[in-house]
Amino acid sequence: MDTKIYVTYNKIHEAVKRLAAQVEDSGFNPDVIVAIGSGGFIPARILRTFINRPIFAVGISYYGTGDIPMETPQKIQWIDEVQQKLTGKRILLIDEVDDTRVTLKYCLEELLSHEPEEIAVLVIHNKKKKKQAEFPPQITRYFAAFHVEDRWIRYPWDAPDIQDHDRCAEGSSAQYT
Amino acid sequence: MDTKIYVTYNKIHEAVKRLAAQVEDSGFNPDVIVAIGSGGFIPARILRTFINRPIFAVGISYYGTGDIPMETPQKIQWIDEVQQKLTGKRILLIDEVDDTRVTLKYCLEELLSHEPEEIAVLVIHNKKKKKQAEFPPQITRYFAAFHVEDRWIRYPWDAPDIQDHDRCAEGSSAQYT
Repeated sequence: MDTKIYVTYNKIHEAVKRLAAQVEDSGFNPDVIVAIGSGGFIPARILRTFINRPIFAVGISYYGTGDIPMETPQKIQWIDEVQQKLTGKRILLIDEVDDTRVTLKYCLEELLSHEPEEIAVLVIHNKKKKKQAEFPPQITRYFAAFHVEDRWIRYPWDAPDIQDHDRCAEGSSAQYT
Repeated sequence: MDTKIYVTYNKIHEAVKRLAAQVEDSGFNPDVIVAIGSGGFIPARILRTFINRPIFAVGISYYGTGDIPMETPQKIQWIDEVQQKLTGKRILLIDEVDDTRVTLKYCLEELLSHEPEEIAVLVIHNKKKKKQAEFPPQITRYFAAFHVEDRWIRYPWDAPDIQDHDRCAEGSSAQYT
């Protein structure tokens, strides 16, 4: 049995729409969106349809060849040129999944060094598992569309064949919604 | 009659997959992908599934309030920290649409100043219209999945309701494929 979680584009789109409403309901009004690349690019772009703010992208790589985690996350791209624009700002930090939490923690600490007013975290999926890192204590708002078991999540953008992917999603959707 | 062009996520995904094959067939082997934000974020992330290269994001805004073009494109984010990494490299520059060509030209000139080996341009849609800017002469490879009339293209990530969007796409798909 295939125990992976297959997610369609439309399901991601609707999840982001609901998350946008949750962010608004919470009273958090971000000045900027920061997308962690490359997993956060697609959720961030969709979010901008519902919360229209500039998107800054940061590139972080935590996996080397063969999907083996490196000792620490590595910056592929950062936002030094605009970092001064983050001071005093409300940031909404986006990634597709909160897995080990190591990448999120790393980004949060880097962003906090620019002294923003507040940072909130938004992800599509949170994996219910023991995390290898904790959020800094300044982080009090956390939005996740789905809280799922620790299984392999197959995102649509990774699909070699999107029609096959959607068929798998139909078969697996009952398992986690 | 609604003359807009509605595009589904799956259609974008399959178009990017075909473009990746065209890039490969052309003999162009990029070192890095540069995504023009925010329209290029989603195509770039999908492309990475088929051409696995690091993605750098640049943020360019050419429209002010009310969708009125500004005099020149404005940088929201650039890649100064990594610009030296572009020297001597083969770059694949991605955006969702080649409309007036002004933003693409602006990005190309900026990127060329870092003396890459080559830059190729990849877009989902090219609008068949008189362009307000030309590509620099160094640009000899150009990949577009669709060449369409000068109509309003509705991308899935901009949909307030993705189900409504898909219904509109079904009605309009015969018009341009």
